[in-house]
Amino acid sequence: MSSIYCTLITIGDELLIGQTIDTNSAWIAQQLNTLGIKIKKRVAVGDNKPDIIEALNQGIAESHIVILTGGLGPTSDDITKPLLCDYFGGTLIENEAVRQHVVAYFEKRKRPQLQSNINQALVPDVCEVLFNEMGTAPGMLFRKGDCTIISLPGVPMEMKHIMSTSVFNILTQRYETPKYIHRTLLTAGKGESFVADMLQSFEAQLPADIKIAYLPNLGSLKIRLTGENISEEIVEAQFQQLRNEVASIEVAPKDTDLEHAVHELLLALGKTVSTAESCTGGLVASRLSSISGSSAYFKGGVVSYATEVKLNVLGVNPSTIETHSVVSREVVIEMAQQARLLMNTDVAIATSGYLEKGEKENEVWIGLASADSTHAVQLHVPYDRQKNAVLVVNTALNSLRLFLTN
Amino acid sequence: MSSIYCTLITIGDELLIGQTIDTNSAWIAQQLNTLGIKIKKRVAVGDNKPDIIEALNQGIAESHIVILTGGLGPTSDDITKPLLCDYFGGTLIENEAVRQHVVAYFEKRKRPQLQSNINQALVPDVCEVLFNEMGTAPGMLFRKGDCTIISLPGVPMEMKHIMSTSVFNILTQRYETPKYIHRTLLTAGKGESFVADMLQSFEAQLPADIKIAYLPNLGSLKIRLTGENISEEIVEAQFQQLRNEVASIEVAPKDTDLEHAVHELLLALGKTVSTAESCTGGLVASRLSSISGSSAYFKGGVVSYATEVKLNVLGVNPSTIETHSVVSREVVIEMAQQARLLMNTDVAIATSGYLEKGEKENEVWIGLASADSTHAVQLHVPYDRQKNAVLVVNTALNSLRLFLTN
Repeated sequence: MSSIYCTLITIGDELLIGQTIDTNSAWIAQQLNTLGIKIKKRVAVGDNKPDIIEALNQGIAESHIVILTGGLGPTSDDITKPLLCDYFGGTLIENEAVRQHVVAYFEKRKRPQLQSNINQALVPDVCEVLFNEMGTAPGMLFRKGDCTIISLPGVPMEMKHIMSTSVFNILTQRYETPKYIHRTLLTAGKGESFVADMLQSFEAQLPADIKIAYLPNLGSLKIRLTGENISEEIVEAQFQQLRNEVASIEVAPKDTDLEHAVHELLLALGKTVSTAESCTGGLVASRLSSISGSSAYFKGGVVSYATEVKLNVLGVNPSTIETHSVVSREVVIEMAQQARLLMNTDVAIATSGYLEKGEKENEVWIGLASADSTHAVQLHVPYDRQKNAVLVVNTALNSLRLFLTN
Repeated sequence: MSSIYCTLITIGDELLIGQTIDTNSAWIAQQLNTLGIKIKKRVAVGDNKPDIIEALNQGIAESHIVILTGGLGPTSDDITKPLLCDYFGGTLIENEAVRQHVVAYFEKRKRPQLQSNINQALVPDVCEVLFNEMGTAPGMLFRKGDCTIISLPGVPMEMKHIMSTSVFNILTQRYETPKYIHRTLLTAGKGESFVADMLQSFEAQLPADIKIAYLPNLGSLKIRLTGENISEEIVEAQFQQLRNEVASIEVAPKDTDLEHAVHELLLALGKTVSTAESCTGGLVASRLSSISGSSAYFKGGVVSYATEVKLNVLGVNPSTIETHSVVSREVVIEMAQQARLLMNTDVAIATSGYLEKGEKENEVWIGLASADSTHAVQLHVPYDRQKNAVLVVNTALNSLRLFLTN
């Protein structure tokens, strides 16, 4: 079976002046890859007729599928719809279902309907309309020879909705794609090159039709196996072998993140947690509380940025700070112990350290406390302030997970 | 003067499977725009010879400048360097300065030097080497006719370093670009369409060579004027007029964000702040403490996610919660008052509300307290949990700013 290729064309001046970071393309690429469709090329062009047409000609010549996003809004700089109508030799006609939807959309929001909005209901008579329940610009599907051309709005929520409700089905029915099987696991605590080294002999014995990918993210690392046209059993056996190889650093045998792993663990154990943060300034608390349902285990925290707050609100002993300094094993453990008592939780986690480049060797301490034990982790953070903060939070969440399971 | 165009080519399979979101292109586009260079097109291709060559041919035919990023690493899938060497008819030779740098780089990090790393010192004899102090892969500059072709590593920090230390200079010396003057201001509290409506007559009278752009970001909005080949005085006069038009919602007459505006205001007033957060779970504290030097005014906060923490740690009166419910004007004001006393700060800011879609009309309250006054703001948040949290934090920061200045 030969590969099915797709070209992605993103339309809009905002992409060429760097106002917008294109997250749509990465999402579409991920989704299509899962379906066994490969991306040939990604092109971003302005709201400019000749450039769009050139990209379209090339995409149709080189790929089985062309997906365009953007340029479908109601304003005058959105030229994609009339351009596609011309390109495929059609005429714009009013689509009754789309018109009713647009009218209802504005009525519901109590906003006046401008002519430019009603014009959203005009669609080329040579396309299949892909209904957009999330907005007013419909998606459109054209065919040229063996090529399928799909035009979608650039608003991520609307694009994702149309892709999920209609495009995936249409493409998998129309194209016979290779069967991909993905198996992903999450690890934490070791860098990509260290893990790749650990897995040298595992990689060497992998069948040629199973690929391995490393997806690092500041303190955590996903590893993904992808089998192409190979039995599920073989991929599963390799995945179990991979799990054995990384058992010491595995967080979860699935595609997840640290806060969800901690979420599931705390729910399963029926334990509660609180925080005492200095250098991370509330980021550990915000990650713990970012998940729906986290109120079952996260009670709260103290952001003790000033030493005064460590003393007066958390109740850390002044002599501990004097003897060991504010960034030390002893202080983070006492911060965690005090937070645990103050918030009445089963465990607590604390952070204190230097995140700024060149500050005291960028030393950071993470402290943990339960009723009967404590633990501390030291790290040296190598990036800028913002990335260091994320690295510390990820390390803290992983340390909490290990503390709860050991 | 005619426009100078640049094509951006991003190389790497990771972009085509959606593993990596391309932030490099947006950064390069922004920087080049500031220099008066327009982006013609952005293309992303895999580590694949024919696709790279096709993109290169097209870029050279259509633009004055072609910038390639990625594909310069030491591993076997990084094919850009030998490909460019062939393309421009050169031979790979060892560059002594780069070799010494690579050796020193690994020695400093106490990492073994593999042959693949030493190979980083091989460069085409037909290019100008753009020295990379931040990593081991040098940048390269080639010329073909009037076109300048620049190849840079894909690691953002290395790419930005080479761009800033050499590429900008080379390009502004080589090309006579139109003179752009940008003037940006930050507003908060009103949406893009509302502000665009406010500015209809201002926009109508703008000279043709001054463009206006709206850059919205969940609760805040930047407005940018860009003059092309027009005197600084005219742009400045228009900018002052714009400032008058939006005076009621202006945060700062420059390109900044809410936390920096609050940072400058608190430093100027010499006042300190603390937080009491429920629904935002520590995000207000983390934004306040994200800026270098924030310890001068940010003392700390309490994340009172559970009602129990509102009562026992903050000391909110149980009868206030019973009478008014936990999401109410009275409770957020008491939370702010209690945080202010607990942390001994001049002002305090509190949040409580429902961020989840469909929860109790998504009501959110923001409370503020100083020694002699209080204030509360209500909002209804329309997005998903994560975006709503950011909207509340931005609104809270803006409310704090208004509270401090009124």
